[in-house]
Parts: sequence; structure tokens; C-alpha cells
Amino acid sequence: MLFNGVISSNAMKSWTVEAASMPDGSQVELAGWVWDVREVGKIRFIILKDREGVIQLTVKKGDVPQSVWEAAAGLVKEDVILVKGVVKASRIAKSGVEVIPSELRILNKSKPLPIDIWGNVAQTELDARLRYRIVDLKRPESLVIFKASSAAARAIRESLYDRGFIEVFTPKIISTSTEGGADLFPVQYFDVVAYLAQSPQLYKEELTASLERVFEIGPAYRAEKHSTTYHLNEFISVDLEAAFMNYRDVMSILEDVIINVYSRILQVPGVVDMNKEISVPKKPFAVVSYDDALEMLGKKGINVRWGDDIPKEGLEALTGEVGSPFFLVNFPTSLRAFYTMPVEGDPSRSESFDLVIDGVEIVSGATRIHDRKLLENALISRGLNPANFESHLAAYEWGMPPHAGWGLGFYRLLMVMLRRSNIREVVLFPRDRNRLTP
Amino acid sequence: MLFNGVISSNAMKSWTVEAASMPDGSQVELAGWVWDVREVGKIRFIILKDREGVIQLTVKKGDVPQSVWEAAAGLVKEDVILVKGVVKASRIAKSGVEVIPSELRILNKSKPLPIDIWGNVAQTELDARLRYRIVDLKRPESLVIFKASSAAARAIRESLYDRGFIEVFTPKIISTSTEGGADLFPVQYFDVVAYLAQSPQLYKEELTASLERVFEIGPAYRAEKHSTTYHLNEFISVDLEAAFMNYRDVMSILEDVIINVYSRILQVPGVVDMNKEISVPKKPFAVVSYDDALEMLGKKGINVRWGDDIPKEGLEALTGEVGSPFFLVNFPTSLRAFYTMPVEGDPSRSESFDLVIDGVEIVSGATRIHDRKLLENALISRGLNPANFESHLAAYEWGMPPHAGWGLGFYRLLMVMLRRSNIREVVLFPRDRNRLTP
Repeated sequence: MLFNGVISSNAMKSWTVEAASMPDGSQVELAGWVWDVREVGKIRFIILKDREGVIQLTVKKGDVPQSVWEAAAGLVKEDVILVKGVVKASRIAKSGVEVIPSELRILNKSKPLPIDIWGNVAQTELDARLRYRIVDLKRPESLVIFKASSAAARAIRESLYDRGFIEVFTPKIISTSTEGGADLFPVQYFDVVAYLAQSPQLYKEELTASLERVFEIGPAYRAEKHSTTYHLNEFISVDLEAAFMNYRDVMSILEDVIINVYSRILQVPGVVDMNKEISVPKKPFAVVSYDDALEMLGKKGINVRWGDDIPKEGLEALTGEVGSPFFLVNFPTSLRAFYTMPVEGDPSRSESFDLVIDGVEIVSGATRIHDRKLLENALISRGLNPANFESHLAAYEWGMPPHAGWGLGFYRLLMVMLRRSNIREVVLFPRDRNRLTP
Repeated sequence: MLFNGVISSNAMKSWTVEAASMPDGSQVELAGWVWDVREVGKIRFIILKDREGVIQLTVKKGDVPQSVWEAAAGLVKEDVILVKGVVKASRIAKSGVEVIPSELRILNKSKPLPIDIWGNVAQTELDARLRYRIVDLKRPESLVIFKASSAAARAIRESLYDRGFIEVFTPKIISTSTEGGADLFPVQYFDVVAYLAQSPQLYKEELTASLERVFEIGPAYRAEKHSTTYHLNEFISVDLEAAFMNYRDVMSILEDVIINVYSRILQVPGVVDMNKEISVPKKPFAVVSYDDALEMLGKKGINVRWGDDIPKEGLEALTGEVGSPFFLVNFPTSLRAFYTMPVEGDPSRSESFDLVIDGVEIVSGATRIHDRKLLENALISRGLNPANFESHLAAYEWGMPPHAGWGLGFYRLLMVMLRRSNIREVVLFPRDRNRLTP
């Protein structure tokens, strides 16, 4: 039918979870997928599933129109159906209600699925689940993960809007390396070779000279050949930068962000089933200096040389000592990127921090250098050529304010909050060295 | 100083606009940039600017500490300063208040800027402004644009969360062309050649089979060699897709989104100065069928052959006839992408729409095909090989619901709302054929 001249604002279908709390006798329209069918004599029980839950349709010969009885006969799992009917209280149905359909339309038929979405997850390898990801996403647990993901992104933004931050979009195609370090993916950009941005670091710092407080939630790329359960080559980075703040100020903002994210995802049904120990962290988070951390680890027989990264087992041991989350602060300056501000009067240490949750590094941040000469020296001391950073350095002569910021690995945060053992679980279509599809 | 064991939650500095409404005698701490300095006898007037506005600092010899008087002497435009002082009502100062500083610290010195940010914009070419974008962003007009941009993104998301949509992140590195058409940027992904996604189209459609209602705001890439005032090679796409909806349903959602965006950006100070005619559109938006549009244009001497795109001058002429915004609907099926649902009983026309604002196409959407066989035929009729789409087609056999959606050009929407003549004005760091820096 051609457009009839009026934009419809049809009442949308109800969610199953809404129907479950409707009064006895309510008319309802539902749509979703056949989760299960059982036939007991003259009754066909259909479990209808949508994103929010399941509900029982009770199709009893004689009680429903003959067309409904017949449509119910041929149904198989994952058929897509539309149902109109009446909500009835039920002592048998799990949700306490059943729906007696007056209309049942099959919108699409399903073939047998390539992987099991009803049984025990452990029986299907993660590899197979990711290969058939669009099917795997039908599992109730997957639905919980991606509802939590959306709730987490929303909670982060709300916290930052409230604190005067502006959301920005910076380009992901860049002409040169941002930080002079990690491997980059090359892009053929018309006649020249460009790269995918590994972070919006330099852009966000430059933006503090005008927009003052900015954040971005967007993709970032690292062409590193790692193959761990907590690295990916494309990931979502939450980046924040603020003028007239130091590392303590942005740590304080970060505490509030993390607390808001936990509060919000705890409201997503099913999250507690995935992480039975989850709770909203309390302020202030514990703070451990890098030097103290090395001493604590030494006593436990984990020896880290001053100037070296603390390995994952070290972060886990520290979590055992001080709890979770905790801040690690004042890293050796040489361990951090060139733009990190050294501590005044103790330049071998820096105004830097990591936030560690459940033994995993989730956030890295610091006060940044805002003086051009200091920044040039920091580049040189790391073997980088200031001439390659001239357009960035110029910004430091046109009113660059003192500033600080952090970068948060969005998927890592989700992984620890939902207690997934592999980061790929919380990513719709992960990209790693061997995975470019689906 | 090393971390002192307590995370600071220092009261942040106040914005100038906050200070302007403080009672006479209030203590205030401000930080920002020197916008102007004037010396009248024994008084130095400093206009301090931050992201939210300007305020006058009145430095009178004898009234302020000698250190403040001296610090004020050397100030030049764009020096970064921190000020503590007392708010005083003033008949002379524009904002009605002035601040008498008790402390004035210079946080960073500025050199002369490479472009004028104080004078008439028209005097500086857009090219130069984009080359020195980080300086150009200091202009009050630029600050308004990017506050409006953040407000617009926030308004879109709020409307969609309210309607049960889940925010998703899909990969931007993909193995093959999504839509079989437009030019793609190749990426060297380890040992294979991959591409930058031109849209999340197929992913978002597949996701309706589990998450039902999804949206994404993220970058998209087109390697087209156009050079217009309203195309870019990297842009922000707002993508929406919903199960159990048709094109009318998602048009209705779109109306609400657009209305919310206009309402929110009208609250951003300065927006009305940029577009004096801006007003919140009213529901329902006008709807014109493609066929009727051709007839209306024919009468105006603009002849478009049935099956051809309506050129920009045509969209502008139609705006003159029916107002703005308006929907164009029921495009020829052959004009739209393969996944577009034909009209039942009239397969040469489709359940498709564009939203046109001020003569510019901002959104494209449609009911999508959800039947595998129909989708295969649609591919074949466009000269595409279904075998190349097998992993996508398979999804249609595992419970694919009827669905509809749209894609909105975020920067185009900003451009028309803020009446900018070039899309580059509303993009922090635009990417076009000749522009890969800054």
C-alpha cells in the first residue's frame, strides 16, 4: 500500500514483561519468537520470547478461533509470530500470567539454528558462538550483556554532561601516529597512506584550549598482534580531557562515573545472575602509589623492578590486598607517554594513575604537560622527533591551559562488571588478528 | 607533589556566566583566557573569556594587591589566567558585574594567533580557519556550534532510549562491501585487505532478530571523490533499526527525534543568533509522494524523469511548496538499495522515505525486506551476486522479523539547523579528498 497521507503512530506492541504485569482480562498485542512449543492433548503451549522475557500462550482447541489452533500446529522454535489476545492470571505459567490468543500470525519461518541457544552455553565453543553471533545474541544471557552495554554508555555520558563536559567527535582517519608508539593500521586514503587513530589523545588535549571539558566515546585501533582474552584490535574508548584540572580532579570525576555505571547496570534485569558479587563501589576508592605497590608485591614474592610495568598477576595480588576498585598512582615518568606531567620536584615520577577493577587495568590517566618546552624535552627523551609533532606543539603557544584526562576501555569495564572471562563476550562483532567476520 | 592519599574533590572553578549572576560581594574563582586588555589611567580592564562567556576584571592600582597590578601589566590576548576575587555590581561592564581580583596567576603565555578570532569571520577564509582549527574553535561562534552538536547527540539518544532502543557499537573494519555499491577505503588488516564500513546497515538489520530496537551514532566512510559543501569522506551517521515496525512507524519516531533535537539546541545560548528563523518543527511533518513531487516540479519547469533522483534544486523548490521539514515517500524501488521493501501490489514503488529539511536530504529510511527469497531476487535484479552475501542471507532463515529503519546524517542536520553554508563548519576536523590534517 502506498503511503496514506498520515504518519502512523500505532501503539507499538507490548513487551512480554509488560504483559506479565497487566490486569486479568487486558487486551494485548505481542510479537517475538517461539522459544518452545509443547502439546498436551487438546492444548498447545507456546512460549513466546522477546528481548525482555518470555510469556506463555495457551492455545486450547475450541477456546480459540480455529485459525489460531491451526497456526499453532506448525510452529517451530524461532518462528517469528504476532499475537493478539487476552491476558489471564495463571497458576501454572512461570510469569503468573498466560495469554489466550484471538489472532496468531506467522511473520517469518525459521530453519534449525546452527548453534544451541537453549541449552548450556558451555556446550558451545566461543568460537562457534562468535561465528554465528547473530544467532548467539538470541541467548538470554547475550541480551543481558548488550542491554548492560547500552546502560553503561548512557550512564557514562549522563555523569559527564552533569559535570559540564561536551561530547565531541574526532576523526578516526589520521595522517600520522598520535603517540609515536604502537602499531597502526594503514588506510589507502585516495592517493596517500593514512592511518586509523589509536586514540583521540592529541585532539582532545588541543580541544581543552577552547571547549575546556570534552569527552568522546568512539572506536580506537591498535595493530598489535596480541592474542589474549582482554585485548582487541578495534575497541571502544571513552576519552575525557579537562582544562584547569589535575589528575586528582579527573580521578574524582572518574569515581563518580564508575559508581553511576555500576548503579545503572545493576538495574538491568539479569546482571546480578551473571555476577553474583556485583555491588556499587563506594567512595573514596583506595589509592596505592607505584612505589608502595612494588613493596607490597615484594613481600608476596612478586618482584617488579622499579621502572617496569606491574604484570597482571601483580594487579591481582594488589586487589587481594586493597580491594577493588583501586587507583595506582605516580608511575615512573619513563613508563608513561610523552605528554604525562612529571611530579614537581620529583621528575622521575609522574602525576599519573591507572584504575584497576578486579585485577584488570580499566582506565589510564594523568595530568598532562601544558608547556611547549617541557613537551619538546619529553619527546626528545623518548627518542621522538619534535619536528614530527610541530602542528600539535604549535597549539601550546596559543593559550594552552593546564589540563588532565583519562582513557577508559569500555569493553574491559563491561567484562569485569559482568564477570566474563573473555572480552569477546561483551563485543557484538569482535575484531582480532584472526577475526574479521562476521 | 606526590599523591597525598586523598582524592581531591576541589570545588571546580566557576564559569563566567555563573559569576555574572552571583550576588554582590561573592567570592569567586575563575579561569580562562584574556580576550581583551585596556588601560585607562590607573585602571587595567581585563576581559576574561571562558567557554561560556566573558566577564570584566577591574584591576585598579591601590585597590588590588601590588602583585595583581603587576601581573595584569604584562597580559596579552589569549594568555591563560586563574583569578580569585570578589564579584561587584557594575553599571559599566556589559554583564552587569565586574570582578575585583585578589589573586591573579598566569598559567600559560600566548603568542600572537595565526588567525583573527576577534574580528569578522568573513575576513578569514574557511580554508585558513580549518588549517588552524584549534585556534578557530576559540571564536564564540565555534563554541556555540560544538555545544549545539553535543546537545543534538544527547537529544537524539534520549528520544531513542525513551522508546526502548538499545545503543550498539558495530565494527568499522569490515571484510567486504556492505551495500555492494559506493567506493570503500581499503585498510591493511594484518595480512589481508579489509575496508572501512560505509554504514552499519547489514549489522543493524541482523541485530533486530535479537535486540529488536537498536541505534548507533558512529563514524561512517565513503571514498567518493565529490567536492561539495555538504559531503565529507568521514562523517557521523545516526543509524536506527527496529523489529516489528514499518516505514511509517520509524517516520513517526523520527519526527519525535527531530523535534527533540530542535527543542534542545534552542536552549544553547547563541544558536538563535546563528539562525534567526529557527523554530521547533510541528507534527505531523508534511508528506509528499515521489510521484506527486515530480508532478509539482513539472509545473515549475523542473522536469525529472520517473526513476531518476530529484536534484537539489528540486528539493529546494518542493520546500518552497510544502514547507520544512517534509517527507518524500514511495521512491521507485530501482532508486533504492537492495534491502528496501517494495510496496505490496505495486513493486515498482517502495516503502521508503527521505526527510528533507531546508532543501537538504537529512535522513533516508525504509521498511526492509525480511524474506530471504525476496532479498535474493532484489540482489540479482541489481546485478549483485547473492553468493557474496551468504552470511547475511543466512540470518533470514533464523527468525528474521519484519523491520524498518533509517540513517541520519548528523553533520547535515547540524548544518541546516545552524544555517551554515558549508558542512565543514560543524565538523571539528573534517576529512575530505584534500584534507587529512589537522
